[in-house]
Amino acid sequence: MDKKGILVVVSGFSGAGKGTIMKRLLADYPDHYALSISATTREPRPGESHGREYFFVSQAEFEEMIEKDALIEYARYVDNYYGTPKDYVHRQLEAGRDVILEIEIQGALKVKAAYPDTLLMFVSPPNAEELRERLVNRGTEDAATIASRLKRAWQEAQGVEQYDYFVINDILEECVQEVHHIIRNEHARVARNHAVIENIRAQLKGFAEGE
Amino acid sequence: MDKKGILVVVSGFSGAGKGTIMKRLLADYPDHYALSISATTREPRPGESHGREYFFVSQAEFEEMIEKDALIEYARYVDNYYGTPKDYVHRQLEAGRDVILEIEIQGALKVKAAYPDTLLMFVSPPNAEELRERLVNRGTEDAATIASRLKRAWQEAQGVEQYDYFVINDILEECVQEVHHIIRNEHARVARNHAVIENIRAQLKGFAEGE
Repeated sequence: MDKKGILVVVSGFSGAGKGTIMKRLLADYPDHYALSISATTREPRPGESHGREYFFVSQAEFEEMIEKDALIEYARYVDNYYGTPKDYVHRQLEAGRDVILEIEIQGALKVKAAYPDTLLMFVSPPNAEELRERLVNRGTEDAATIASRLKRAWQEAQGVEQYDYFVINDILEECVQEVHHIIRNEHARVARNHAVIENIRAQLKGFAEGE
Repeated sequence: MDKKGILVVVSGFSGAGKGTIMKRLLADYPDHYALSISATTREPRPGESHGREYFFVSQAEFEEMIEKDALIEYARYVDNYYGTPKDYVHRQLEAGRDVILEIEIQGALKVKAAYPDTLLMFVSPPNAEELRERLVNRGTEDAATIASRLKRAWQEAQGVEQYDYFVINDILEECVQEVHHIIRNEHARVARNHAVIENIRAQLKGFAEGE
């Protein structure tokens, strides 16, 4: 089995519960996974700390990272930059940990273009009605916000075909296990095991030639 | 999640233990899996029964199956035909069971050509030395047979790149679980969930348009 970590992008509808899934995955399997931490130029909110929620950097620092090609992907929302620093991700992958990036579809496709063996997973509730209910039940958003989130969900759903897996979060416990198994099994893909296969082939050749 | 069964081909080096894995899979998850039974024109051996090890048919019957395109794949070894009847496989897939075909690489590639969404798994011991030991420890084959099996293993290893997964059977119990999870997770592939995705998309569109 491939020893190097796999880069995993998890996207999903807002309200699909992907944040909860990621937290559970990291809590249950701390040795297997690392969650990529984004860099941003926005101000920290109360309770957020540098290196936990985000790496909070200045605009000049962020633009230097862009300049030095130190980001896997980045985007600008309103007046702030958000991006994924390469350095941390590369170190975790080399250490054999699967690195999870929780980003939106546009970012996901940029990552896939730069790292073609990235695993793309999309998390969805069982149906759209359920999604609407989850957003309503949060109680934190007004009707207009919920409507705009549902519209954005529909827009995001256009790109789902470019993902590898479509995971339905119905029962959280089962979904966490499913996501875990999908990522673990990805290590057994033939495309990730060329060295192992080549090695067995060379040994077999030796035996067949009577060594 | 996709409700229709998936066609799964399991191949592997002779001595890799794939027969044992298949038996355990069927014993542990009888509702999930069906093992495809081949048709053959060879004579039944003592203890073999029609419809269990094989469907034993005459040469005329087999050639009629070929004529009627009733086989997923077939091959002729020495003087006998071996093939996979379509009918049984299709019925099991429609019933939502994943159908496992235990066949060699040439047959596997024929199945994949006819059914492009077939999942191809290759089972291997952890290394070639282990494979040689397992063949020797069986105690049923002489040195020349073992050498010829190792040579065939090397030849088969040439085609491994065309498989989807390379599964290492080190600890049987773990390998059975891995194979089970790989097949189960395959149902969550985006390519197998177009109808589900389309349905959610249509619902979201309705909500976004204020229905």
